[in-house]
Amino acid sequence: MIKTDILIIGAGPTGLFTVFEAGLLQLKCHLIDALPQPGGQCAELYPKKPIYDIPGFPEVLAGDLVDNLMEQIKSFEPGFTLAERAETIEKLEDDTFLVTTNKGTQHNAPIVAIAGGLGSFEPRKPPIPNIANFEDKGVAYMVKDPEVYRNKKVIIAGGGDSALDWSIFLADVAEEVTLVHRRNEFRGALDSVEKVKELKDLGKINLITPGEVDGLQADENGHLASVIIKKKSEATEEIQLEVDHFIPLFGLSPKLGPIADWGLEIEKNAIKVDNALDYQTNIPGVYAIGDVNTYPGKLKLILCGFHEATLMCQSAYKKIYPDKKYVMKYTTVGGVTGFDGTKKEAPKAVVKAID
Amino acid sequence: MIKTDILIIGAGPTGLFTVFEAGLLQLKCHLIDALPQPGGQCAELYPKKPIYDIPGFPEVLAGDLVDNLMEQIKSFEPGFTLAERAETIEKLEDDTFLVTTNKGTQHNAPIVAIAGGLGSFEPRKPPIPNIANFEDKGVAYMVKDPEVYRNKKVIIAGGGDSALDWSIFLADVAEEVTLVHRRNEFRGALDSVEKVKELKDLGKINLITPGEVDGLQADENGHLASVIIKKKSEATEEIQLEVDHFIPLFGLSPKLGPIADWGLEIEKNAIKVDNALDYQTNIPGVYAIGDVNTYPGKLKLILCGFHEATLMCQSAYKKIYPDKKYVMKYTTVGGVTGFDGTKKEAPKAVVKAID
Repeated sequence: MIKTDILIIGAGPTGLFTVFEAGLLQLKCHLIDALPQPGGQCAELYPKKPIYDIPGFPEVLAGDLVDNLMEQIKSFEPGFTLAERAETIEKLEDDTFLVTTNKGTQHNAPIVAIAGGLGSFEPRKPPIPNIANFEDKGVAYMVKDPEVYRNKKVIIAGGGDSALDWSIFLADVAEEVTLVHRRNEFRGALDSVEKVKELKDLGKINLITPGEVDGLQADENGHLASVIIKKKSEATEEIQLEVDHFIPLFGLSPKLGPIADWGLEIEKNAIKVDNALDYQTNIPGVYAIGDVNTYPGKLKLILCGFHEATLMCQSAYKKIYPDKKYVMKYTTVGGVTGFDGTKKEAPKAVVKAID
Repeated sequence: MIKTDILIIGAGPTGLFTVFEAGLLQLKCHLIDALPQPGGQCAELYPKKPIYDIPGFPEVLAGDLVDNLMEQIKSFEPGFTLAERAETIEKLEDDTFLVTTNKGTQHNAPIVAIAGGLGSFEPRKPPIPNIANFEDKGVAYMVKDPEVYRNKKVIIAGGGDSALDWSIFLADVAEEVTLVHRRNEFRGALDSVEKVKELKDLGKINLITPGEVDGLQADENGHLASVIIKKKSEATEEIQLEVDHFIPLFGLSPKLGPIADWGLEIEKNAIKVDNALDYQTNIPGVYAIGDVNTYPGKLKLILCGFHEATLMCQSAYKKIYPDKKYVMKYTTVGGVTGFDGTKKEAPKAVVKAID
């Protein structure tokens, strides 16, 4: 069982910055995210896109913002449970919460901060009747660890950036990469489209367009052994291809998911919070911050999540230490003391005579 | 008369970022600040100090944060009335506000956003009986335009960074620079202390310590002509020194100032606002954002000011255009279109066939 002070559901920018503000209060954090890496949408959906409305950054790539936040919180040593979805919450007798993921990992904390963004990003699945039988047996809807595909035969389906980028990446890892898309046209960064064309011409990517994966066949162990592709040229042609892995990358759609059943007040697919005080939900000790919450005048902006996280941490501190009086120190004055023993602080003024 | 959409009192980080959020809504801003340059405390008091709690910046110098914000808002072409203090506010018949500074500059806007930080920074004045007679006649408590001192005889008093830094700067501008401090020890950045020592050894700064300026004498026009310095060695020695300018730099202390008389609800030297909605004060159309406001759970942090500014701008937009429906567009999707005709936007995805 993982124990922490603040259990954060969602490792997007708001969840990550919570670690920093909690750390200033000497509170430890652990984050759970359904995605395989921290950063939420910024890392998963648009790492190379510029954001223009983060205060102090005339322009910052979403992926760089995540990297900066990871650097900023590093010394507060956050824990991560990644590629697992927070599934159930239970209030224990000692007034702490037990949160269990879909993989059964248990987390215990006095405070839960839901920073789940638009929800957990669930992959859109292709309408192949028996596909569910192959999940974790050759079919995956996102790439969690590219090493899984080393020297394997992989087929990727999709026509967007994810399909293009993973085809490029796996061309150097897998034994064989086939990319199938139902149109001839791909929609993505110009660079990526051109790189795929180049790898196709070099024979490093096998391109089938327009085409669709239509059927899946198992080996004797129930693992994926081959796929049936309908290639639509003049006449539709059926191709059977031996593969070890099939990765349909048809995008992600956000779903509030199991959190919707936690007994929280929900409005317009978001969690209602007390914005006049501390962004607490109707369950004392459970907060909701960032895009996942709603209140009068709410704006789903990253910079608002940062503010909400900051006020929420103050409230959490008072709940955990009801008798301690906290006096805020500016980081410019007091510096930042990490849990790893590091200390960052402004150079002190010297007091020195001039003779 | 200067006309604008949102008149911002205070050009610190919160006031500056307001220009950006207003700009996204196509609202124009004008800022008034008592200090001679934008940036508030960050620029005036600690430009070289690192801040650690701006989200996305593991460390940023306060002066750099201001520079970044100025760059971020540039295309929205804010106007500035600097080195003037907002003195009076009047509600006109057309429901707009008229704000007049201590120098008589008039500003007119339907919305006023007070982002005054801890108040206007008023210089601490030395206790020399007739010093008020010499204000603007040779005595200044801050350096607004260094060129005023070119080829003049200048005496600076003080023992902190401002006194050190301006002595260094003016050593190359003025005909003669004398630095007086009541102790031998200076308190400031090591670099600055060492540089002053070096300039003293080169004869470019005339150092009198421990000493105090004790009297001021006028020429026939009432302009400063000389100062009397009490030098405290074994016996106290009186020195008369001919000078054109006397700049006592004894620090700044924040005062809410004239804003306190604007009819706003004040609590603990800060302006009460409706934090449950839009950070509006008890006067409709007048908002207070950043360190100048107060509400339950308020934290005087720059990142909170950014959030407050953002929500405030949405409310201002609805007041100015009650009939328009605003649909928020993410900058990552819609880009940023400046008033100067520039446009920043994410590279668009291409739709391209691979043959």
